[in-house]
Amino acid sequence: MEEKENHKSNSGQKPIIKRRNTVKKRYVKEEIIKGILEGDRVSLGQGITLVESKKEAHQKIAEDIIDACLPHANQSIRIGITGVPGVGKSTFIESMGELVIEAGFKLGVLAIDPSSQVSKGSILGDKTRMQYLSTNKNAFIRPSPAGESLGGVARKTRESIILCEAAGHDVIFVETVGVGQSEVAVHSMVDFFLLLLLPNAGDELQGIKRGVVEMADLVVVNKADGDNLKDARLAKVAYKNALHLFPPKESQWLPQVLMCSALAKQGLDEIWQLVMDYKSFTKKNNFFNTKRNQQAQYWLHESIRAHLHRLFYQHPTVKDFLKSKEKEVMEGKRSPFRLAEEMIEQFKKLM
Amino acid sequence: MEEKENHKSNSGQKPIIKRRNTVKKRYVKEEIIKGILEGDRVSLGQGITLVESKKEAHQKIAEDIIDACLPHANQSIRIGITGVPGVGKSTFIESMGELVIEAGFKLGVLAIDPSSQVSKGSILGDKTRMQYLSTNKNAFIRPSPAGESLGGVARKTRESIILCEAAGHDVIFVETVGVGQSEVAVHSMVDFFLLLLLPNAGDELQGIKRGVVEMADLVVVNKADGDNLKDARLAKVAYKNALHLFPPKESQWLPQVLMCSALAKQGLDEIWQLVMDYKSFTKKNNFFNTKRNQQAQYWLHESIRAHLHRLFYQHPTVKDFLKSKEKEVMEGKRSPFRLAEEMIEQFKKLM
Repeated sequence: MEEKENHKSNSGQKPIIKRRNTVKKRYVKEEIIKGILEGDRVSLGQGITLVESKKEAHQKIAEDIIDACLPHANQSIRIGITGVPGVGKSTFIESMGELVIEAGFKLGVLAIDPSSQVSKGSILGDKTRMQYLSTNKNAFIRPSPAGESLGGVARKTRESIILCEAAGHDVIFVETVGVGQSEVAVHSMVDFFLLLLLPNAGDELQGIKRGVVEMADLVVVNKADGDNLKDARLAKVAYKNALHLFPPKESQWLPQVLMCSALAKQGLDEIWQLVMDYKSFTKKNNFFNTKRNQQAQYWLHESIRAHLHRLFYQHPTVKDFLKSKEKEVMEGKRSPFRLAEEMIEQFKKLM
Repeated sequence: MEEKENHKSNSGQKPIIKRRNTVKKRYVKEEIIKGILEGDRVSLGQGITLVESKKEAHQKIAEDIIDACLPHANQSIRIGITGVPGVGKSTFIESMGELVIEAGFKLGVLAIDPSSQVSKGSILGDKTRMQYLSTNKNAFIRPSPAGESLGGVARKTRESIILCEAAGHDVIFVETVGVGQSEVAVHSMVDFFLLLLLPNAGDELQGIKRGVVEMADLVVVNKADGDNLKDARLAKVAYKNALHLFPPKESQWLPQVLMCSALAKQGLDEIWQLVMDYKSFTKKNNFFNTKRNQQAQYWLHESIRAHLHRLFYQHPTVKDFLKSKEKEVMEGKRSPFRLAEEMIEQFKKLM
């Protein structure tokens, strides 16, 4: 729906880009910035469309919009929500979102799954399952940009967070599917990481990538209702014991395990209270701000790494060389270190 | 002691390098290669000294030695052994090593801790605690090279493994301290990862880096003797339950938990049997070879990454630029992505 609105306004009287008309373009950019800062959802949608665009001209405008939004961002709590398909993420986000909005917050919901547009997992594309949020003026929902690599999605999601915050959204949910590398990316852009699990402890972990459980600040056993209640209680104990065996977090926060039924709207207050407790706890020990600073630093260096990687691996000569020699390394016939050196020497000459 | 032998031979009648005498140099290189392939421990020690040397001339010879050894390497089982200081690694390696040698294998023991020469942790420097191994002709022990970064140590350890294997050592122990990033490096060069823990479950995990437990193919509760026996049994159950909650490994191998007393030489047969079981299990499902191929590939790309990183970050202009701008990113005043782009553009012009 958000997408549709954008398309409408793109082809309507407020074009994002009007070629051969620099004055108009500048005017529009400023319009969008003004709109975002006033909390206008259409402008926010347009801004994010520019952030997501692959056109160079759009990206240049997007960068200016981001720069204009940066001083107004950062006033929020960013919550990563992950869990395998079937765990009830859409219902959870809908119910939790309603609670958050009723409590007076403005909510932004973003996703970070490269695969989300294609198929499995992300539920933001299917907003019919989010009746309340998709029609509420204090909620802004946006699925992952399509056709992007994880790095691309991560960058765009992070920048979309900035825009959402500048538009006054002070609670941000970032959704992932919990089965891939996306969790590391999400973990590097949220303050609080929430892992949703099903009541049948253990089994579903099959589908969750190693290390994801360790990232959680809160594990929530969802669907803790009806016949599932007994299983959910057992699962809660099992996860509690498991979390206890992990080393303490840098935040000094002890990860918790709670149960809820997103469908029956039970246990949600407790979850929100815990998120608020986390915020004041980490604000007090300064981890909250330290982590945000570190995250910005992380994305700077991660982005540099990605650029260098592209520079090197997309070089045609490097590609050819690698194609013919990598196999020898894998078969143990050549030293990986020596080949790396040779390739870097070549690369330096080619640059 | 190994060190001493090397020094002796370096200054004696078999100089590794004789400047201004290319014929001699070539002769010596071939001598070392011949010696290694014949299983001569002095030659092996010399070869590793060349691998560890920072002199360019030495490194060139080392590369040729490695190339000559590569076809004769790869016939072994490589076992990573980790655990916090105080867990009894030296005694474990000594007792386990004795068992392995008595079983007819030739053992190589290497370390991968950048800090090991300095202080805490690695016990290979202190061979008085390894009576049996330090005097046995079928054992070769070598501490980490001093004054190296983790990347440097990792590379040198991996290359030393090649030399050890070419010299006929068919069981390789690689030791780490279990508190830092070294475990990831070790994990990327061994077939089997063994985590030593103390009987007081939970508490010591404080000292172990997050994620290390997940890497283990086998957790061994050491010091399971005397008064500790009850605690050790409880710890075993706790770790077993915790491991059960992790997702399955790519190897399809189910990580196990065993108890032993390295001091009393109890429970060691069971451990060795399990290592052998692992080897035949992963040989059968082809994970053993796949993993080794992937590891070689990993080191190729990891090495390229490290080179690119150095090229970029050690550039004086980049350094200056970063110094003045990084703070703005961390404080949320600039977009990390945009700064990264600007820096890469500058870098391309400078190259």
